[in-house]
Amino acid sequence: MSSGLHERSIVIDGLIVSNFGREVFEDMRKGGLTAANCTCCIWEGFTETMRNVMRWKQWFREHGNLIKQVYTTRDIVEAKKEGKTGIILGWQNVTGIEDQIGYLGLFKELGVGIVQMAYNTQNLVGTGCYEKDGGLSDFGREVVAEMNRLGIMCDLSHVGPETSKDVILHSKKPVAYSHCLPAGLKSHPRNKSDEQLKFIVDRGGFVGVTMFPPFLKRGAQSNVDDYVEAIEYVINICGDERVGIGTDFTQGYGKPFFDWITHDKGYGRRLTDFGDVINPEGLRTIGEWPNLTAAMERRGWSPARIERVIGANWLSVLRDVWGA
Amino acid sequence: MSSGLHERSIVIDGLIVSNFGREVFEDMRKGGLTAANCTCCIWEGFTETMRNVMRWKQWFREHGNLIKQVYTTRDIVEAKKEGKTGIILGWQNVTGIEDQIGYLGLFKELGVGIVQMAYNTQNLVGTGCYEKDGGLSDFGREVVAEMNRLGIMCDLSHVGPETSKDVILHSKKPVAYSHCLPAGLKSHPRNKSDEQLKFIVDRGGFVGVTMFPPFLKRGAQSNVDDYVEAIEYVINICGDERVGIGTDFTQGYGKPFFDWITHDKGYGRRLTDFGDVINPEGLRTIGEWPNLTAAMERRGWSPARIERVIGANWLSVLRDVWGA
Repeated sequence: MSSGLHERSIVIDGLIVSNFGREVFEDMRKGGLTAANCTCCIWEGFTETMRNVMRWKQWFREHGNLIKQVYTTRDIVEAKKEGKTGIILGWQNVTGIEDQIGYLGLFKELGVGIVQMAYNTQNLVGTGCYEKDGGLSDFGREVVAEMNRLGIMCDLSHVGPETSKDVILHSKKPVAYSHCLPAGLKSHPRNKSDEQLKFIVDRGGFVGVTMFPPFLKRGAQSNVDDYVEAIEYVINICGDERVGIGTDFTQGYGKPFFDWITHDKGYGRRLTDFGDVINPEGLRTIGEWPNLTAAMERRGWSPARIERVIGANWLSVLRDVWGA
Repeated sequence: MSSGLHERSIVIDGLIVSNFGREVFEDMRKGGLTAANCTCCIWEGFTETMRNVMRWKQWFREHGNLIKQVYTTRDIVEAKKEGKTGIILGWQNVTGIEDQIGYLGLFKELGVGIVQMAYNTQNLVGTGCYEKDGGLSDFGREVVAEMNRLGIMCDLSHVGPETSKDVILHSKKPVAYSHCLPAGLKSHPRNKSDEQLKFIVDRGGFVGVTMFPPFLKRGAQSNVDDYVEAIEYVINICGDERVGIGTDFTQGYGKPFFDWITHDKGYGRRLTDFGDVINPEGLRTIGEWPNLTAAMERRGWSPARIERVIGANWLSVLRDVWGA
């Protein structure tokens, strides 16, 4: 029996990288998502990323009864009113700009609002979490400054610890781990230490917590309550005003996709092996998102905290970064 | 002694392809231009055209006291109020989309409002005016339909007669020869016959008259009064409500530029040879634009006709095509 809290609330998922199309969009509606940060660049260069954006524009037309594009947080509020899911175009890598800082402005105008500074390995800006990390490059500093100017959020989820620290210190606007888990529950290169979680939030930043099972304590055995336990662990460090959700749903994808994302640049050396990706029981699909809210209620969180964590906190930090 | 008509009016130049930068922008202000269709694609493909747009975005920031970008005709009215020149990004070829119709939407969102269907030679859409013209391709029909949907004006100035006719008949929105001269005054592959001028305007289209001296009756000997004579010739065929100005100023460019535009794809066979390009006396530079208005007054045109021809007509047809 639903309390209605999920249905009433603005619900924002800080990271979805799924096999997008009508089925996923329908499941987003079933899951009551008000908005989601949807990945449209991982290893792609400029042209292929533009093609991905082009495909999204076509989806916005073809599935306009289910989704709408988000440029500002006003669009998220509108999506809630219209019963649609707002799509924030986001990147998990900076490869989409190749070596041209000026491309950032073109993508921002086309709706890209969140960009991760590196994906697992080194790029022109900095280094990912799966290799030795020498920190933010000088070019990277210029990229961060341009993202600040334009109002594009810096995401650090897959970024190495040195580059992350440099970006947190260098950025004039809040930055985020949009989808991470605490190393305190499971040691993993992708997970963040208590110190890292505190460091980003103490400097105005944000933490979105993922449910990606390979990084959860009980792995493929996890259920939605294990996920809420992990979120609570983060809240105990960061407070409940700068923490949100970034599920990392990879719905509709199989082995070819996981092979692509776990090899450097999509084809190079293997970086990690997730084995079978089985989402936590109770949260296997985007459509089951309401079970996450229900699990928070079951755990005894106050409605005010739940509302913040499932969406209001994301809305607030995005408004800070985007300026509207 | 100025009557003040030029200064009061909305002045729109339907085609400028100059060595853009602060000097040209200052001369646009000196010339009292309210808006201009500025070329950012001739032979370039997708990436290079995006780079050109990127450079424009930087100019809009750096020279924001002189110019502002035009997305809708409201921006042109605003530019007039603010004492700036509104920049309409335009293409003289469709090469910027390569073979992707979906790219048109990306460019429209970035401000491209006018696109010529071919530049002098054949492309995927149709054929230019310097070779045998088999008309609009099937891909071309889809491009026109998408431009109609998005609100991008089809320009036919450098397009061959068959492709032009097909576009005029196929387009659901007004199309233009943004910068052409009448073949009735000088026979030239680039000039349009009386029948062609009548054909486009009878179907809701528009004619912008160029002063490009190689296509004027007296060539490099022409002065601003020869230009007004040519405009009047067009008005006598088309009436004075669907005729405007498209100077084709190539200010700041020399031989390398003219070599580039007069060879197929920028490097191939030579298509034509302009010789020395010397603009009509009295209208050598963009800054001398007020002399054109003065020459119209000298010729005895009514203030109402002059206002229409130097800007109001363009404003009206652009509103029809863009929808705002």
